[in-house]
Formats: sequence, structure tokens, C-alpha cells
Amino acid sequence: MSLIVQKYGGTSVGTTDRIKAVAERVKRTVDAGHKVAVVVSAMSGETNRLIGLSAEMSKRPLPREMDVLVSTGEQVTMALLCMALKELGQDARSYTGAQAGILTDDSHNKARITDIDTDAVMADLNNGMVAVIAGFQGISNEGRVTTLGRGGSDTSAVAMAAALKADECQIYTDVDGVYTTDPRVVPNARKMDRITFEEMLEMASLGSKVLQIRAVEFAGKYNVTLRVLSSFKEGDGTLITIDEDNPVEQALISGIAFNRDEAQITVLGVPDKPGIAYQILGPVADANIEVDMILQNISGDNVTDFTFTVNRTDYDRTMEICKARAAELGAVDVSGRTDIAKVSVVGVGMRSHAGIASKMFSALADEAINILMISTSEIKISVVVDEKYLELGVRTLHDVFELAQA
Amino acid sequence: MSLIVQKYGGTSVGTTDRIKAVAERVKRTVDAGHKVAVVVSAMSGETNRLIGLSAEMSKRPLPREMDVLVSTGEQVTMALLCMALKELGQDARSYTGAQAGILTDDSHNKARITDIDTDAVMADLNNGMVAVIAGFQGISNEGRVTTLGRGGSDTSAVAMAAALKADECQIYTDVDGVYTTDPRVVPNARKMDRITFEEMLEMASLGSKVLQIRAVEFAGKYNVTLRVLSSFKEGDGTLITIDEDNPVEQALISGIAFNRDEAQITVLGVPDKPGIAYQILGPVADANIEVDMILQNISGDNVTDFTFTVNRTDYDRTMEICKARAAELGAVDVSGRTDIAKVSVVGVGMRSHAGIASKMFSALADEAINILMISTSEIKISVVVDEKYLELGVRTLHDVFELAQA
Repeated sequence: MSLIVQKYGGTSVGTTDRIKAVAERVKRTVDAGHKVAVVVSAMSGETNRLIGLSAEMSKRPLPREMDVLVSTGEQVTMALLCMALKELGQDARSYTGAQAGILTDDSHNKARITDIDTDAVMADLNNGMVAVIAGFQGISNEGRVTTLGRGGSDTSAVAMAAALKADECQIYTDVDGVYTTDPRVVPNARKMDRITFEEMLEMASLGSKVLQIRAVEFAGKYNVTLRVLSSFKEGDGTLITIDEDNPVEQALISGIAFNRDEAQITVLGVPDKPGIAYQILGPVADANIEVDMILQNISGDNVTDFTFTVNRTDYDRTMEICKARAAELGAVDVSGRTDIAKVSVVGVGMRSHAGIASKMFSALADEAINILMISTSEIKISVVVDEKYLELGVRTLHDVFELAQA
Repeated sequence: MSLIVQKYGGTSVGTTDRIKAVAERVKRTVDAGHKVAVVVSAMSGETNRLIGLSAEMSKRPLPREMDVLVSTGEQVTMALLCMALKELGQDARSYTGAQAGILTDDSHNKARITDIDTDAVMADLNNGMVAVIAGFQGISNEGRVTTLGRGGSDTSAVAMAAALKADECQIYTDVDGVYTTDPRVVPNARKMDRITFEEMLEMASLGSKVLQIRAVEFAGKYNVTLRVLSSFKEGDGTLITIDEDNPVEQALISGIAFNRDEAQITVLGVPDKPGIAYQILGPVADANIEVDMILQNISGDNVTDFTFTVNRTDYDRTMEICKARAAELGAVDVSGRTDIAKVSVVGVGMRSHAGIASKMFSALADEAINILMISTSEIKISVVVDEKYLELGVRTLHDVFELAQA
């Protein structure tokens, strides 16, 4: 007998019929001899409906009451799922975040879980009941409802799995697993049977959004075995485990991630003095704009070109800041562009193998795709290219690293 | 400075604009120097929407989870109202039933309040905050959400008022007070400035549904000064107080109540033996059917006719039971009719005045309205008449007791 935590997202519980289908899946898991705790999201559309109501009340609704409001979405789902389980003859009990003992700090709308008191849930599981827990919410020290921020239900599930010492945390979503790249770009993209936490983090943060990144971090930290599955079709999904599980089988490259939401800014002809990076990026950071890749060219005459990327939505603000700064620094000009994209190859295998970068660059060169920027980490290599080459670049790399084959 | 509990029903908070209007009214009360605790219902339509969802899950949804589900309705309202108050510069905090310390027994869907721990709410009120409390809900000893049954928000308000030792409990609704009778039947029906708890109970249970009867009982028991007002127009509404407040001013008759949902059943020619009433009504009571008026005629030959009234929705079931019973008891026949109605005159003044009944009967006789049954209590006289005479009877009695004049 295993203890399994299953998490169902908004689309999976989007209608009463889908909630019934979830109940059947939960029941099957119980019938297979497992203890099951279920973490649910709000029915799709419900959270937006509630946010819409709050927007009618106030432009800046009280964060504390915002949490009270949106947390009702998951409460509706959990009650309906318990009813559906009872219809199937399966005893179940619902738990708000507070009832499930999910303690958080008091940062309303973006709380962090500080502790979980699993006594009540564990007692129900040991009595043969299914515990249905509202995701995305907890309770502060002061007894106020908190939420973990949008998408936080994944984190709730992983945290419950860690606290319950679950054998597996299954995240049910509308895709059947993690793919080597986006199948809409590369039709023969392959669903991976397994991937490491580190790779998953790189894949997620680079745009393959299957799982919330905080949930993956949490799972990695507490070594929770995570599995992504589809709630609409059968299958084993993708298992997300620690690296050491089976290093031998590990492929060189696991997947190709990409991101279109990129913008590039170059401060041209800055006098090349120590501290120049800080002087340009300091005001950008002060404006809460996240900088991704950074490149500094030494040209002649003691001047340098300083290039970096930000999220495309931050482009206008960043240009404004840099133009003001450039004048003060005596730079020649500031230029920028938003028609760029980032493509990354990700794989823990590249730790122990040289030559990945050159293989990547030569494959792109063969297709006449110009590389604008490069950045590397232990398990990924990212390049910035013209946005128009994005699909071609992704397909080319998917082919050259033979990702369609297991 | 007074402490005032205000309760707003579903229509009063039916849209975001109406919630804003409620916020303005609450703010005005605070600005007038009062401490204010607000009890809110779900936005009109919301509870039915939630019940609709549950009906799709199960024909007999788990009562425990039903409470979890429907209690979200009030939580949405309380959060939105706090946001609206904050927009007006008024600090406010929301409270679920549990957070407000409303303890109940564990009868899900129809729980009774056992105790209220007002510490948290009182602390907020003393700090100049408005406390916005979800009506209709509480928490059981086991920490599970309970609901007081539909319309229970009135009871929540009265119970909070009693526990907080409030100076007044104001029930805001879509009518501007309690009328001498239904203005749709008698256009010159008059809004009463005050009415006693006892009269209100008779008026409510007889069909003038402004306030939940349990709330009135509760208010009477704990001597909570209750006021019914409109949330849509200004005015002092109707004050509901104990009898002793000003016996001198008390009118002879306060109002005319009526009820169409009546049905009459007669068991004819029953052998007149001791215990016959029990033998007929026992099985009816066993079927959870409530009997209202009862009449036993002694005819000759040691046989009797036994007549009683039930709610019209229980008519078919009651007929079935009585027919089966009649055969066993050797009765001649069972007859019944559903085209009857009950009209009642209500007033604490009749305690000390004779002649009310004869005045009532003669007025009805003057209009050739035949009285089918009569029942009396200390402060009311009810008659059953043909349903077709209902409006005429109500108008006649409203006139003869001069209720249009204050």
C-alpha cells in the first residue's frame, strides 16, 4: 500500500462531469490499494470570475480580503468532489487549507508555506477515507486565510506530499507529460518517461510551462517523487526524480526549451570603466525588472557595448531607464529590439560531455541562423536568435540531438 | 456610542453596485459614532447556483460537504464588502462563522448556535474597525463548517447582537418594514412603527414572511431589539420589541395574516372512542407531516367527524395515510379539499379585550363568507375559509379593525 497525493488543476475540474471523472480516477487508485489525498484547484474560470468581482469593488482590493474571496473557488471544488466520491461509495472529507494544517507566513496573495500539521488528514487516510484538500491556500499565524499566488496548487500538492511522506505526488493536468519540446512547434516531439528536477526547472523557466516552478523546487528540496499526467487520457505521464536515480540511462540532451517573451537592449559606446554593469543595471533592478542574459563587448578606444535581455512586457520601461542613464554615463546611444527569441538545449547529460555547444552552434549555422547572444549553465545552453528563426531553430536542434527517439 | 449589528440579505447584496451601497450605509452608521458589526448573506442567486452544482453531483449530496459548498456564498460577499468599505476609507475585516466564534451543534444543513466567542470581533470593533461576518454559518465542535439552514442569516445576526450585547439589530431587506397585512391584497395596508415579538411570530408563521421565525424567537428570548428596514430606501422601518415596552399605546389588533398553503382533511363517521384523535393523527405525525388546526364534531350515534388541516404540499400523502387508517378504524369515509385558506387577526391587545372574535365573525358573515374552522390563541384568532374569499376576507377585516389608521 502506497500513499499517493493527486493534484487536479482547473481544467481537470472545470465542469461537474469532469469532477465526476476525477472521482472515478481517485476511486480506482483507492481500489488499487492506495491511500489517497487529493489537492484540487478552483473550477477553470472561477478564479477569474472572483477576481472580476473584486475589480468592480476596488482598483487595489485589500490583499487580505482578496485571499478570502479567491479561496472560495477551491472550497467549491473540494465539496463537489467529496459528493462525487460518496456517490461512488467512497468516503471522503474536504479540508480547507486551514483544516489541512497548511500554515503559511502572512504575505497575502503570495504566502509561503511554513509548516504542515498533517494529523487530521493522516487520521482520515488511516481510516480509509480520501482527504480532499483545497490547493492554493493556507492559514497565517493570525488565523487569516492566505493564498500561495496563482498556480500555487501545485506547490500545495508537493508540500502535502512531503509532509505526508507520500510515495508519489501526481500532478494531473491537460497534457499527458513533459515533452522534449512543444509539440505545436515540432510535431514529432516525444513525451519523456522521466526527467530530473534540475532539467524540469530549466524547461519550466524557459517556457515549457507544465508545472509551477516553485513546486518543482519544493519537490527537489524535499525529494518528493513527482509525476505529471493527463487527467483526460490514460498513461504513465512523466516522472520527475533526482539526478542520481539512474545516471546511466540519462540522455545527453533531454529537451529544447524556448521563449518568445524576450526583448534585447544595447547601450552603445559606454566608457569602459569598472562598475559600468552595475551603473546600468542598478536602476533597472530598482524598477523591479528582471534581467535575464547579459553580454559586454569590449570594442576599441576604451568604450564598450553593453547588451542584456528582459521580458518583452518590460521593454518600454527598460528603454526609458537606459536612455536616461546613457546620457549620465556619456554613452553614444541606446538601441533595442523585441523581435528576438531564446532557444535552449537542456540536459543533465551535458555535465559529463563536451562538444554539445559546438554541435548546437554548427547546426544553427548550417541553417543560416545567426546567434545574437549566448549564455550557458551546467545543464543548459541558451542562445538568442531572430524571432523569425525560432521554429526552424527548435526543429533543427530537436533533430540534431535526436530527441524524437527514446 | 451604540453598538449596532446590521444584517443585509441576498437582494441587498445582489450585485457589486448594491454591495457598494451597503458599504455607504455602513460607513454612514460608523460616521454617526457607532460601532458596527455587519452580517451578510450570499449574493442573491449564488446559493441556488451552488445548490445546482451539488445537484449535478448527487441526488442526496453529503450534508457535511453541502455546508462546505454553500458557505462559500457568504464568504464571497463578506470579502467584497470589506473591499468596498476600504475604498470608502473605512477599515474592515471579514469573518467566517468559524472566525467569528459562532459555535454550533453538528447538525449539518440545520445547525443550531450553541455559543458565540466574540473576543476577536469585539477587539476589532474596539479598534474602530467594522467586522463583516458571514451569516448562515458556524463551526461544529469537530471544526467542520455548518450552516443554519436557508434564511439562517437573520438568526446569525440576532445571535451576534445578543452575544455582543448590541443596542440594536437591524435587518435590512427589500421591504421597508412590517405591514398590517400584505399590501398586494390590501393597498392601504400600513407599515407599523412597532410590533411585539409575539405578534411578529404569529405574523411570520402565518405567512407575512419578512423575518425568519427562528430569528424572532431568538431575539425574543435574549431580548434583542430588532428593527426591519429597507436597504433600498430611507426610513425607520419597524421596531420589534417586547410587549412590556409600552402597553398603553398597544393597538387592539396589529395585523391580518393569511396563508393559502392549506388543505383540509375530514375523516367521516369514526366510532367515537377514547384515543381516536391519536389513532388518526399518530400515523400522520410519524410521516413527519405537521398538523395545524384540529376540529372534532360529535354527531349522533356514537360516531364523530374528525377534521384537520395540513400544508397543501402534504395533502396527497396525508389522504393516503388517512384512507388506510379509516378502513382499520371502521370510519365511513375520508374527504378533503385544497381550495381553502387561513385568515388570522393578530394582536397582543386582544388579551385584555373581549369581543374581538364576535366582531371578526360578524364582519365575515356580513360579506357572506362562510367559516369552515376556527382556532384561537391568546393573541390571535384564525379562521379557515374558501380560498376564493381570501382577499375579500382580509380586506374586510383590515377595514373593520381600522388598521389603515395608525
